Amino acid sequence: MSEDERAIRDLVATWIAASKSGDTPTVLSLMADDVLFLTPGRKPFGKEEFATTSGQMRDVSFEGESEVQEIEICGDRAWCRTHLTVTMVAPGGKPIRRSGYTLSILHKQPGGQWVIFRDANLLAAEQG
Amino acid sequence: MSEDERAIRDLVATWIAASKSGDTPTVLSLMADDVLFLTPGRKPFGKEEFATTSGQMRDVSFEGESEVQEIEICGDRAWCRTHLTVTMVAPGGKPIRRSGYTLSILHKQPGGQWVIFRDANLLAAEQG
Repeated sequence: MSEDERAIRDLVATWIAASKSGDTPTVLSLMADDVLFLTPGRKPFGKEEFATTSGQMRDVSFEGESEVQEIEICGDRAWCRTHLTVTMVAPGGKPIRRSGYTLSILHKQPGGQWVIFRDANLLAAEQG
Repeated sequence: MSEDERAIRDLVATWIAASKSGDTPTVLSLMADDVLFLTPGRKPFGKEEFATTSGQMRDVSFEGESEVQEIEICGDRAWCRTHLTVTMVAPGGKPIRRSGYTLSILHKQPGGQWVIFRDANLLAAEQG
């Protein structure tokens, strides 16, 4: 496995671990300043809106598992496909479990750090 | 605009035009044999399933508009983000209008032709 592939796998693992522990600053450090998140049924949104939403969800507990299924690297560009399962529970609420795939474009910054640049999130509520 | 970017824009335009005219063989020629389509709430599917579904929708009329919003090329790899609006009408049915974004990974084949390799489709039904 190349150093770049290892770095991207570490990024995905760090993202999930930081989300679990509510460490929004770490999650924000893993994305480009001009990142765009694509989700069904809404306009693309960026880093600021991501941060605002994370702040609003401070009391929501988060569990997640990620499995990187593909990575392709081309110089300082890369993409990866990941299968995610996340469970969120608001205080006094029922667990909401969602699963599915993400397809992400990554950029390697001049300092050598990989960051998420575009992220298509296809997670859907699980039935049952 | 580079020759590669022009070729990818042409691919997107050809895809929409061929879909409108029900020309499935042309659409299939624009994707890699090992393409994967990612959509919310279902498993990734490939070329064979795409062809089967297209055959089942032979009687469904299709209108579509695409707008390429970003393309980034790295050698024989590329990705693009497109905004799509599609309207489908089954015989005797009401028009179903869906819109949203796609994020696609493309490969340049040894012969020089660009093809879709991975495609995340985030289209959702429009409200109203």
